[in-house]
Amino acid sequence: MNTVLPKQSTPMSERCPLPEALLLALQQRFGERCNMSMAMREQHGRDESPFDVAPPDAVVFAESADEVAFVVGLANQHHIAVIPYGAGSSLEGHLLAVQGGISLDVSRMNRILTVHAEDLTVTVQAGVSRNQLNAELRHAGLFFPIDPGADATLGGMAATRASGTNAVRYGTMRENVLGLGVVTAGGEQIRTGTRARKSSAGYDLTRLFVGSEGTLGVITELTLRIYPLPEAVSAAVCFFPGIDAAVQTAIQVIQLGVPIARCELLDVHAIRAVNTHDKLGLRELPMLLMEFHGSPAGVAEQAQAVQEIACDLGGEDFEWATTPEARSKLWAARHHAYLSGLQTKPGCRSVTTDVCVPISRLAEIIKASVAEVEESGLAYFIVGHVGDGNFHIAYLIDPLIPAERETAERLSQQMVALALRLEGTCSGEHGIGLHKQGFLIAEAGDGAVALMRSVKAALDPHNIMNPGKIFAS
Amino acid sequence: MNTVLPKQSTPMSERCPLPEALLLALQQRFGERCNMSMAMREQHGRDESPFDVAPPDAVVFAESADEVAFVVGLANQHHIAVIPYGAGSSLEGHLLAVQGGISLDVSRMNRILTVHAEDLTVTVQAGVSRNQLNAELRHAGLFFPIDPGADATLGGMAATRASGTNAVRYGTMRENVLGLGVVTAGGEQIRTGTRARKSSAGYDLTRLFVGSEGTLGVITELTLRIYPLPEAVSAAVCFFPGIDAAVQTAIQVIQLGVPIARCELLDVHAIRAVNTHDKLGLRELPMLLMEFHGSPAGVAEQAQAVQEIACDLGGEDFEWATTPEARSKLWAARHHAYLSGLQTKPGCRSVTTDVCVPISRLAEIIKASVAEVEESGLAYFIVGHVGDGNFHIAYLIDPLIPAERETAERLSQQMVALALRLEGTCSGEHGIGLHKQGFLIAEAGDGAVALMRSVKAALDPHNIMNPGKIFAS
Repeated sequence: MNTVLPKQSTPMSERCPLPEALLLALQQRFGERCNMSMAMREQHGRDESPFDVAPPDAVVFAESADEVAFVVGLANQHHIAVIPYGAGSSLEGHLLAVQGGISLDVSRMNRILTVHAEDLTVTVQAGVSRNQLNAELRHAGLFFPIDPGADATLGGMAATRASGTNAVRYGTMRENVLGLGVVTAGGEQIRTGTRARKSSAGYDLTRLFVGSEGTLGVITELTLRIYPLPEAVSAAVCFFPGIDAAVQTAIQVIQLGVPIARCELLDVHAIRAVNTHDKLGLRELPMLLMEFHGSPAGVAEQAQAVQEIACDLGGEDFEWATTPEARSKLWAARHHAYLSGLQTKPGCRSVTTDVCVPISRLAEIIKASVAEVEESGLAYFIVGHVGDGNFHIAYLIDPLIPAERETAERLSQQMVALALRLEGTCSGEHGIGLHKQGFLIAEAGDGAVALMRSVKAALDPHNIMNPGKIFAS
Repeated sequence: MNTVLPKQSTPMSERCPLPEALLLALQQRFGERCNMSMAMREQHGRDESPFDVAPPDAVVFAESADEVAFVVGLANQHHIAVIPYGAGSSLEGHLLAVQGGISLDVSRMNRILTVHAEDLTVTVQAGVSRNQLNAELRHAGLFFPIDPGADATLGGMAATRASGTNAVRYGTMRENVLGLGVVTAGGEQIRTGTRARKSSAGYDLTRLFVGSEGTLGVITELTLRIYPLPEAVSAAVCFFPGIDAAVQTAIQVIQLGVPIARCELLDVHAIRAVNTHDKLGLRELPMLLMEFHGSPAGVAEQAQAVQEIACDLGGEDFEWATTPEARSKLWAARHHAYLSGLQTKPGCRSVTTDVCVPISRLAEIIKASVAEVEESGLAYFIVGHVGDGNFHIAYLIDPLIPAERETAERLSQQMVALALRLEGTCSGEHGIGLHKQGFLIAEAGDGAVALMRSVKAALDPHNIMNPGKIFAS
């Protein structure tokens, strides 16, 4: 399985500092918004991945698409790398300036431009975060469902084709971005898509940029589908004697076509972590955390169907949380699972897997992966969007002990190799970044990756856009 | 509005017959499956568009992806055009061999390869038709929802990003293709996607090929999402005093978030046509034809909500068709609407529009378009997937009277110009083909179209794949 060996990291290639003319032009236009302090550069040269910091040469805070176009156009003239930066919550090293260059921070582009409640669409700047958007939409009885956990920017979520807890019902960023404003690698501003729900007008540039991880251009604006807040929402937790019974429940729910809105697995390690972090008293057993959306009758009907399946499989304590406060508490705990898990091993870093498989194969791969990590002795926890066949094992490694990282990487490789044999993908939602480039080749094949590279070369001939990500440069 | 002037047709460019070496190789490999008779060439050089026949130089019937790769590889060596051909049901001139070359008929690649009921996925060859697939799936209590009316091949449906009557609930081909087998313009076989429901692994090649209209490669295989047959299905028709009330009903249904499965408009001309063709006795009034999917209680709830909206807007005679036979009769009539409409004016051809707008703008554009066509005196009828904001006016023209075509084109241009002002698209589901190339530029802008062209040039450097479609060569 040599082919699935991931690149551990792209080495820093030979770096030249920014050309003087470029720097002068940036400083003239951006003043203090062009920041070269080491603190700022280091803060922009890391993310939530386990990689070491790779700081950019400068950080520029753009406040408009015109400013983004100015920076990218200039960088293109000088053949200098540009790394779009939103909330810094990538898990795959997307933000590391492995070839130096400019970190282009769009987090100040955070205006919600238009809310069309009557069409269920919204247009926002790329730096708007999902919590910010939902706070705004709530007043109108609307919401944007995609929820990757972190309060990521919508631009970053589009760039990594994010999904998360609601995707089982509402789809991912792929299904929920109607159109984009993009600055191309040449510094030109284009629009993709319209506010219409569907279109057959030409190549699907929207979905070419969604998931392109900043390697084809900078997303500056997004038009998104939004949804009416459901009339009724109800959440429940259910505990299982073993992880297999929990997963089998999720599988049967999906196979039956129940339109469940969220279906999350937490293993016993994740439960312990959130119990500590969020001061909860959840039973220390594998748990499904579920949510149902619909009319009151529809929600009751869905919940009844799921409860019967869970009960048949040994699920206990189907506990309801129908008040918004009780639901918020549970979902907050779920969102804290990653950070809570990290805190169980002080000073650790996490090597996080992200496979997604056809739902019928989910029990098999989780079982195999648990057996392997248990045998390895590494600390770990599991959370999963199991309704989609997607789960994460976070291997908790001591960065000072190289053997732990090696073990984690070996386990990760074994899991991806199995996921591919089961007709799944190496990345359900985090992207390729620096870490999964070998996996991408194993999954898609040389021919398809060569085709991706030819798209990259056509759209970014000087390879300035987030170079070294998805493919090694 | 010069920019929205469509190209009436791409003129036949200078044609050289197929090189002898190419022809010999084709005949050696395919024998009688390489057909150069004028009858066969003419049959493959037309579609359901109003354009004159542009026959290819040869028709090759491929029976495997290897054979497709052989033909494309050979054509690429000789710089000869290849036009993938499925069921011939394009409405936009996709199949016309405007630069000669080879029509590559994949309709014999019609095997259903694997049905994974437990994962709700199916893998088929590109020549499988949607009716064939659904006949197979029905036994397993499953179905594939995308229904463009014609019994198109799934390869063709992916190539045009088709949608149709069920898209309002289940999405379009964009949302329902999980992966593809593709022969690239270089004659190489690649796979895109996996059987996992979602993925963030690299560029979204699946959605680059979906909607590429045969201009980037040949789709040979598709992995699709399928769905459990709903526990309960119920269809209803409702008649309205005017088209506006029917459209307003559809708008309110969508805005309320009712998960209606189908929501089709037929105007009075379409009703008259299907009454004649299908020997029905529908009232000659604007009609919504709706379908509800779900549990018995869920269906009843949806229907109740819609009935109240329709009633408030003057809808009458909410008539139910709950038996499969009664439903089939209604939907057959809807599917015959296009051919029924054509038969109302013997010898006519249809210039068909395909705009799709944000739902709140739908009433405005239908009203304006009806006023304009009424004033013009042209015969016409309207059908619409109004739940998506998508509708078609078929202008019925006498091909021997040039003024009628000119009028139809003028009306079409006016409608598209309005759709774009309303933030919609020139094509909801039929594609660009030969006819809407000017509209694509008006909609997407020069920069975005240039970017599409650069993708085309990168993936098909000799411009052999369906040249002259989407963009003028």
